Amino acid sequence: MVQRQINWSLIDRVRAKNPIVLNLANLVTIDKVADAVSAVGASPIMSVEPAEADEMVMLANALSINLGTINEHQATQIRTVLRAATPLKPLVLDPVAVSAVPSRLKFAHSLLNDFHFDVIRGNASEIAALVEADNTSHGIDAGKVPNQVQIAETCARRYHSIVVLTGETDIITDGQVVYENPFSAEMLTMNVGSGDMLSSIIAAFLGITTNTWDACIVATVLVSAAGVLANRYSVGLGSWQVQFFDQLSIMDTKALLEFFDESEEDYLD
Amino acid sequence: MVQRQINWSLIDRVRAKNPIVLNLANLVTIDKVADAVSAVGASPIMSVEPAEADEMVMLANALSINLGTINEHQATQIRTVLRAATPLKPLVLDPVAVSAVPSRLKFAHSLLNDFHFDVIRGNASEIAALVEADNTSHGIDAGKVPNQVQIAETCARRYHSIVVLTGETDIITDGQVVYENPFSAEMLTMNVGSGDMLSSIIAAFLGITTNTWDACIVATVLVSAAGVLANRYSVGLGSWQVQFFDQLSIMDTKALLEFFDESEEDYLD
Amino acid sequence: MVQRQINWSLIDRVRAKNPIVLNLANLVTIDKVADAVSAVGASPIMSVEPAEADEMVMLANALSINLGTINEHQATQIRTVLRAATPLKPLVLDPVAVSAVPSRLKFAHSLLNDFHFDVIRGNASEIAALVEADNTSHGIDAGKVPNQVQIAETCARRYHSIVVLTGETDIITDGQVVYENPFSAEMLTMNVGSGDMLSSIIAAFLGITTNTWDACIVATVLVSAAGVLANRYSVGLGSWQVQFFDQLSIMDTKALLEFFDESEEDYLD
Repeated sequence: MVQRQINWSLIDRVRAKNPIVLNLANLVTIDKVADAVSAVGASPIMSVEPAEADEMVMLANALSINLGTINEHQATQIRTVLRAATPLKPLVLDPVAVSAVPSRLKFAHSLLNDFHFDVIRGNASEIAALVEADNTSHGIDAGKVPNQVQIAETCARRYHSIVVLTGETDIITDGQVVYENPFSAEMLTMNVGSGDMLSSIIAAFLGITTNTWDACIVATVLVSAAGVLANRYSVGLGSWQVQFFDQLSIMDTKALLEFFDESEEDYLD
Repeated sequence: MVQRQINWSLIDRVRAKNPIVLNLANLVTIDKVADAVSAVGASPIMSVEPAEADEMVMLANALSINLGTINEHQATQIRTVLRAATPLKPLVLDPVAVSAVPSRLKFAHSLLNDFHFDVIRGNASEIAALVEADNTSHGIDAGKVPNQVQIAETCARRYHSIVVLTGETDIITDGQVVYENPFSAEMLTMNVGSGDMLSSIIAAFLGITTNTWDACIVATVLVSAAGVLANRYSVGLGSWQVQFFDQLSIMDTKALLEFFDESEEDYLD
Repeated sequence: MVQRQINWSLIDRVRAKNPIVLNLANLVTIDKVADAVSAVGASPIMSVEPAEADEMVMLANALSINLGTINEHQATQIRTVLRAATPLKPLVLDPVAVSAVPSRLKFAHSLLNDFHFDVIRGNASEIAALVEADNTSHGIDAGKVPNQVQIAETCARRYHSIVVLTGETDIITDGQVVYENPFSAEMLTMNVGSGDMLSSIIAAFLGITTNTWDACIVATVLVSAAGVLANRYSVGLGSWQVQFFDQLSIMDTKALLEFFDESEEDYLD
């Protein structure tokens, strides 16, 4: 079973090592992202001041750059921070809504042109927008983007990044190999910020390992497993969120492997 | 029974149509508002960048403009967005704290002078401040404003808007007809952001119907019913919030009508 | 038992008097802080606009100044607000991350030089940074700072403030007398914003009494008691948060004294 070949013990190692994640955050979800990073055992730091860039980058073990509420001021800050962080610190890009807002797509392209991101995390529309010269999928949600694996591979090869394309099936690829995560909870879509949280949790894992591939897979499976487990006793969005944060904060490697065993019949053949 | 004449099926239609609501948001409650809009089946988008105004407005089916953390930068953005949105998109204004902060009142008046809002949603103090030349009710909470129905009617007539005045009894009026919503949960007051959420949920309903009157009533009753139902098993603010978001996310037209039937003896004669 | 000499009835008086707390807030935790202030019976107001300073200060019974997401714009606003508030309104300073970010330390020092704060609330690293000419504890968390009581006393004497140094044991001192709060919940550390909430809850209590000493102790014990009680039935971060806000919103003086009696054997000799 492929899961066993991944270094799932990274979950325990994040809790043991407590890496610091600098988030240039989406103001809509900044609180959830901080709690999510803290729940997996890392320490979130946030900054909105370009003059703090050097100090903040020096503290951080990894960075997550989110375009969710980008404005001119934050665009400047992001570039200042990325200059300070390159090439020393692992970087995750979350290109929120580049599929829907052309000016964001332009900004994302300029960042991808000037800096190297270890990981790009987005939904199918967002990843498609990054690679399609003539993008026709104008929507804020993933919608029905065909050939998702191919799009993720193209994106990964173009930007020399690992791409984490999240959706009903999460696709993780370096442009050569593809890992498909079968675990999926519908509530991850209704809950605003699920993607933002994953991007910053990936950064938490990058803060303790140079194995970017395993970091992406373990973080993605952890979040989706927490989402699936949260479904079990939830009534709606409120109780799902409670259990999701419970699971994020208590899940260890052993619990994740047990979840695999229990879920095997449902998801894996 | 008056409830049966309103098109309560709008609740199901929002979930089916998934309208996009652009929120110029209150930073204090931006996360809750996003989750609330998502919970009723719409898609929230937020923006803090004036340069994105045209693109964001084009995406949106309706807009909610909230003055809760207004500053000079956001005031500029709001005007830019309103110019792009007028007269094509339905607009909701939430004049947070105009009763307490004279500069906000002045800004709200300038907006109401220059643009037409389909709906104005505020508490009694805020609505009173909008219509009283010589406002003497300085407070951030509704306090004891007398003649609430009359104030709401005056406001509605002056600005050619439907006014949703929320409080112990919610008053909805176009200046001619008045609908009074009897459902009320005290926790909606302790929970910061209940009004902000309602304003954006009204916008969600405006995104799928041109019947502004029904949209206001259905959204208001939905939020208050969720608040009342959340009371049933809650211990305090935390568990109330969980159940409130549960109810927002699962309530359909059928459940709301059942809630009416169960509540009839308590509230209606 | 020392607890009985403190005026624990302040808890009930905050609910009865409903003071207004102006928060110059940390954007990461602004929503939690608003709910926490509301849960203890006060009214939170937030502002990000310097031009509103006079109006906001006039409304407020006390202020909480948080450096958690300070930028140039907010630094200007903070100084404008402090000029308007001095010497009429009680002030709490929360020097978030001054131990880790030298530019924040410099800004905090400039504030402490120009204004008098009734209360300074921080963790051991932050309080140490404020008093050590040559601070070597670079970390965002409290870590293992030795001589915490001595550091708190030095800070209190230097700035003529009551210092609330929170950690495994909370230390409250005016530089002469020391009160140690033995109640402590590990989840208060994982939950992002616990310190921010406490700082603003202290401000809520300062809004109804000139007894700053009692206000600090009662607010600190209230928050830690809510944290301990939330542990009882919680699974992880999510359910702990729910119960923490439940407890904050329902705890009265009587319940706190019962909590003391029940906890006596565990904590007090």
